[in-house]
Amino acid sequence: MESVWFDGDAVGFVDQRALPGEVVRRRAMTVDDVVDAIKTLAVRGAPAIGIFGAYGVALAAQRHAGDAFRAAAAQIRAARPTAVNLAWAVDRVLARGEGGYLAEAQAIHAEQRDIDARIGRNAIDLFPRTGNVLTHCNTGPLATGGDGTALGTIVAATRAGKALHVYVDETRPLLQGARLTMFELREAGVPCTLIVDSAAAITMRTKQIAAVVVGADRIARNGDTANKIGTYGVAILAAHHGIPFYVAAPRSTFDFSLATGEEIPIEERAAGEVRIADGDAVYNPAFDVTPGRLIAGIITEYGVARPPYDESIADLATRPRILLEAELSGSAN
Amino acid sequence: MESVWFDGDAVGFVDQRALPGEVVRRRAMTVDDVVDAIKTLAVRGAPAIGIFGAYGVALAAQRHAGDAFRAAAAQIRAARPTAVNLAWAVDRVLARGEGGYLAEAQAIHAEQRDIDARIGRNAIDLFPRTGNVLTHCNTGPLATGGDGTALGTIVAATRAGKALHVYVDETRPLLQGARLTMFELREAGVPCTLIVDSAAAITMRTKQIAAVVVGADRIARNGDTANKIGTYGVAILAAHHGIPFYVAAPRSTFDFSLATGEEIPIEERAAGEVRIADGDAVYNPAFDVTPGRLIAGIITEYGVARPPYDESIADLATRPRILLEAELSGSAN
Repeated sequence: MESVWFDGDAVGFVDQRALPGEVVRRRAMTVDDVVDAIKTLAVRGAPAIGIFGAYGVALAAQRHAGDAFRAAAAQIRAARPTAVNLAWAVDRVLARGEGGYLAEAQAIHAEQRDIDARIGRNAIDLFPRTGNVLTHCNTGPLATGGDGTALGTIVAATRAGKALHVYVDETRPLLQGARLTMFELREAGVPCTLIVDSAAAITMRTKQIAAVVVGADRIARNGDTANKIGTYGVAILAAHHGIPFYVAAPRSTFDFSLATGEEIPIEERAAGEVRIADGDAVYNPAFDVTPGRLIAGIITEYGVARPPYDESIADLATRPRILLEAELSGSAN
Repeated sequence: MESVWFDGDAVGFVDQRALPGEVVRRRAMTVDDVVDAIKTLAVRGAPAIGIFGAYGVALAAQRHAGDAFRAAAAQIRAARPTAVNLAWAVDRVLARGEGGYLAEAQAIHAEQRDIDARIGRNAIDLFPRTGNVLTHCNTGPLATGGDGTALGTIVAATRAGKALHVYVDETRPLLQGARLTMFELREAGVPCTLIVDSAAAITMRTKQIAAVVVGADRIARNGDTANKIGTYGVAILAAHHGIPFYVAAPRSTFDFSLATGEEIPIEERAAGEVRIADGDAVYNPAFDVTPGRLIAGIITEYGVARPPYDESIADLATRPRILLEAELSGSAN
């Protein structure tokens, strides 16, 4: 299933707010539509937002020129602050220059598909031949535009013949686990069971969880990882139960300018997502930061980065962009 | 706020199903009304159900005699077979004998108020003069008919002049924290902020949580404590952050026949409380068990039981029922 695409004069997307009840495909016809889809989480998941934003810049170039175009691109770039992919993708498309925006957005999308496939392959050996795993939030095709990151690793291991059963945190307040991950796992034919977030601890204790795998929104040089609210708690629970906790994320999720996760700004979202009674005070951070020391490995398209992360992530920073298999075969011609 | 009362020819109650939107006070005029209020969770919280059922027997004695009265009492006693307080309270009222039912129900209610007040007083020194605390689920006046257990300790400390701010887990799947605890804290004038359950970890790390306090459904001789799903995870998070984790519960919550929490059966509730898409598999335990080793102290009407629990709880088992202050002053006359 494609979660985002470009169809000539609009950016298409599956409206994730309607899932799992309905698969609603929409078309963003204007820059405001693009920004709105990102802000309202109709499109969500850091890589998918990046691809969607890149296509959005191509759309903006069809609609606007000069300062109006630059303002539109800046507006898209700022639609969500925490996910580094959005700003990165917008900047990359802009750097390609006029006339090349759409081609660059398409290249970003093709690369994401290739990266997800590599992440999946690199994770297979981390899973047992048969066993239970636990995940949080949504990291599948809907979130990335490819096979997914954390969910992609589970699907890749399943396709490689491993018999995994996935316990899925519902992921309050927006229920991405209950709405999206359960949907994606069903689509992929992977057995899965839904739990409330606060049941993760008893699940780890009573269901022989062999591994936890989650995605990431931003990773610092020491391995500190910003991801969906609740990830930090799941990592602590995994450590307490002696369960390896993995992050699956492409190189583009790393912010090599950040020494630690302390520097990652945490977006706080509206109280209305949580509260029942008007006027109740709510603390509603959308993300938290998991310290690198709680992470057993970070699965990337280059392999599994292991502690000490200061070294393995510094090494990752020196790696060039992997060429697509299509490009490789093209260059052999 | 009173959650249950007797008003001469009916048993009054706050209908908890309407909270927090409305405070609806109802009067159970018949035995069927009493049974219905318990079965539909209009009245909930084990001690509150016990008091309500005791008043229900007094009401039944006004309406019925002989076999009809005995059948009515049996019907009330069986309204929620899992709540041990209900059967205990009905049996105690019946044992008092004809003519004494209302007085015995009032005694049970007065004892609960007294126990809650003692638990509250015994906890005051555990809290800082000013600071943040965190709680899970609902343990206030609505649940007990008194000041509450865990919530009662926070209110008692506030009344004693401490400036506490409470972070309240919403407590999925039934949202007792968001619906009831936030309401009770507002009524009591205690500043409070609602969080999703999975935000407890970042809240502990960034909001200088000084203590966690929760209630209990059943406590074994080694301190292992069954309580609302999620409590075990909160205890692990508190340990990770070096935050003391307290349980507040009356002596009647201890099951001195159980050596450890392994023997406590965990009720699994309906999938429909959690799932969004029909057919999704759900693991929905209503409770989990927190090991005694994660608990800094158990606040009872006798004081704070501390590790090693095998000793302090064995000591608690030898203690008699505390006499009410009214009874003490009566016996001095």
